[in-house]
Amino acid sequence: MKRNAFSLVAVAALAGVVASFTPASGHVDAEASPIYGVKIPAGYRDWKLISVAHEEGSLNDLRAQLGNDIAIKAYREGTIPFPDGAIIVAIHWQYTSSEKNNEVFGSAQSFVAGPPKNMQFMVKDSKKYAATGGWGFADFTDGKPADEATHQKCFSCHEPSKDHDFVYTHYAP
Amino acid sequence: MKRNAFSLVAVAALAGVVASFTPASGHVDAEASPIYGVKIPAGYRDWKLISVAHEEGSLNDLRAQLGNDIAIKAYREGTIPFPDGAIIVAIHWQYTSSEKNNEVFGSAQSFVAGPPKNMQFMVKDSKKYAATGGWGFADFTDGKPADEATHQKCFSCHEPSKDHDFVYTHYAP
Repeated sequence: MKRNAFSLVAVAALAGVVASFTPASGHVDAEASPIYGVKIPAGYRDWKLISVAHEEGSLNDLRAQLGNDIAIKAYREGTIPFPDGAIIVAIHWQYTSSEKNNEVFGSAQSFVAGPPKNMQFMVKDSKKYAATGGWGFADFTDGKPADEATHQKCFSCHEPSKDHDFVYTHYAP
Repeated sequence: MKRNAFSLVAVAALAGVVASFTPASGHVDAEASPIYGVKIPAGYRDWKLISVAHEEGSLNDLRAQLGNDIAIKAYREGTIPFPDGAIIVAIHWQYTSSEKNNEVFGSAQSFVAGPPKNMQFMVKDSKKYAATGGWGFADFTDGKPADEATHQKCFSCHEPSKDHDFVYTHYAP
């Protein structure tokens, strides 16, 4: 009995410690991306805007790239390579025709962000990710990371943008 | 001489007061929009993202809508009408093909934010702007407000979205 009582106290104490480390806001996913071990950072949806984009073809999405404070500072000051701690997220939404907007404009010309698709993170840690240009990558859909095969393509796809520290997006003023 | 000396002190004191009210960061334009008297709010480029859009046709732009903290809170909590103090900005950039991205994707499918075009603000003040749904409007290009004729069209164009407090943009999760 004494041992059980001790265990209960230990479990309760541990639970308290865990609770105290839970971020106050922002979605945090427990699962990390394969290869890189990147989790969804707390509060990423509150980050500042870097730029926006539209991909046609099979992607057919609207995108926004947001950066944490370290990334935004580097963008605004033109610091390349990005410093350790910089994180960039690209959020992708379905490219969706807006009937309401089209009525107002009088033509079928308006497209807005529809349901969320995937989102992709780049996390700068020049030591941890030295083999991939200093960046760790992650691709999530509905909070779940894509498979290892998907993540094996991240760096090779970003290599052509080596002159901009492997980042495609430029800052939109 | 005594009068002049007093005036100098008064001017210096006034300058001090004005300086103390100058925001610490963010572009502030001295010119206000016709009809509504809306100036560019300090720090608007740091506001959180509401959504993104693409307009084809003669507009041919990519857009991001950002909101100040009052607007973002209302969006996230579904508060309609928006409370006084809410400000929304729509930033418009030229719709620009990205050759670099197209090379990586292997097809001409990638469009990014090019040079800035205009930006448009909606400022909620239900008393001051009671005649226009509680919203004051402003359209700026290169920091200069558009003319009165342009601003006379703002509210009529937003009237069809009365069910969403005259705001077209919905929050993109």
